[in-house]
Amino acid sequence: MSYRAPSTGRVIRAVLFDVFGTVVDWRSGIAAAVGAFAARHGLDLDASAFADSWRGRYQPAMQRVRSGARPFATLDTLHRENLDGALRELGLSGFDPAELDELARGWHFLPPWPDSVAGIAAIRRGYITGPLSNGNTSLLVDMAKTAGLPWDVILGSDVSRAYKPDPAAYRAPGALLGLDPGEVMLAAAHEPDLAAAREAGLAAAYIARPLEYGPGTAKAATGHWDLAGTSVTEIAGLL
Amino acid sequence: MSYRAPSTGRVIRAVLFDVFGTVVDWRSGIAAAVGAFAARHGLDLDASAFADSWRGRYQPAMQRVRSGARPFATLDTLHRENLDGALRELGLSGFDPAELDELARGWHFLPPWPDSVAGIAAIRRGYITGPLSNGNTSLLVDMAKTAGLPWDVILGSDVSRAYKPDPAAYRAPGALLGLDPGEVMLAAAHEPDLAAAREAGLAAAYIARPLEYGPGTAKAATGHWDLAGTSVTEIAGLL
Repeated sequence: MSYRAPSTGRVIRAVLFDVFGTVVDWRSGIAAAVGAFAARHGLDLDASAFADSWRGRYQPAMQRVRSGARPFATLDTLHRENLDGALRELGLSGFDPAELDELARGWHFLPPWPDSVAGIAAIRRGYITGPLSNGNTSLLVDMAKTAGLPWDVILGSDVSRAYKPDPAAYRAPGALLGLDPGEVMLAAAHEPDLAAAREAGLAAAYIARPLEYGPGTAKAATGHWDLAGTSVTEIAGLL
Repeated sequence: MSYRAPSTGRVIRAVLFDVFGTVVDWRSGIAAAVGAFAARHGLDLDASAFADSWRGRYQPAMQRVRSGARPFATLDTLHRENLDGALRELGLSGFDPAELDELARGWHFLPPWPDSVAGIAAIRRGYITGPLSNGNTSLLVDMAKTAGLPWDVILGSDVSRAYKPDPAAYRAPGALLGLDPGEVMLAAAHEPDLAAAREAGLAAAYIARPLEYGPGTAKAATGHWDLAGTSVTEIAGLL
């Protein structure tokens, strides 16, 4: 309970988590929601491929905010717009907007990886736990309540009004917790996210999620992070 | 689980709580911390009276922020300054500043009223729960972890950067939860707090805390609120 991170030289007080891919299996959750939507409308659709297409529009949409090309918009708004884009690409249109709103809210209700709840609960006994996600607060609260994620605190990207990898996104939650960046550790399955967190002064723990993009898509980690494991429970044991 | 508030006509989705006095017994907690401090220094001090004096500086200090006379400062900062003021009034000085910092952090670690944890847990099963407090986020997180307050979300006054009864303080947490003001209910032991919440569009539940200022200080409620009770568990039963 007094783990000192080599990269920052500081005792860690809070362990904050990337969410999409690291804590929850967005691809399976969204494919299930899309599959149900497609069945209702008699659409012949590869639900997993549709999930990938929808998710593929995530970074470009945030980049328009990060670059200043558009004012801050919540991830709920971006997910909804990106759904329209993914449908348009397949030549699909004419759906009830309220039904599309509901489908886009599928990002609020994603299934956790099997180790996430127990791992966060274990870490919570010695550290402040929370998401450090591009998700907005209401999305993260709905997800936590549904999946039973035992966060101490939820401060979404609409609190920092910044999207990772903007340094402000990494620093804002720690600042509200009264912590220096070096007292905060980001746990994430994506090395660019960890690299940006380190650049912003945070410690970094890598969690391999080889199934994020489906079977056979795993890549080996290349960076040297403070901690590395294949589950949140494994990270909990190392802390 | 689908309580409609008469005052707003809306189904309530989140029940947010005033904290100091409503959820925790600040006076006993601060008197205990002050008593230990006084004993260490051999001071002849009425610890409960000192707690009242310290707390008495709370509203005037926030008023300077609300009025714009000073920029936003966290409640941690105001508590620390107010401690200096309360000591000065008694002609006490010369203490180690780090020890005074620690004493001021006593506001992070206050005991809950006996019904608070069970009552919040019960309400949480059907509603989003969180504080709606003038406390800063780190204070509220420390308090929740120590007292075991099962909040879904903690958004301190340093997120809204506004102090109650500023309407922005009442509306900011609900907005981050994706809710209209009328879908949010404030639960509080102080009628001026409830009146300001109602003015800002929220529903209001009154919880009597006759011991907040010590025995024999109870006042009867005069307002007509959506709900009223003598404990959080009683409010949970009414929802």
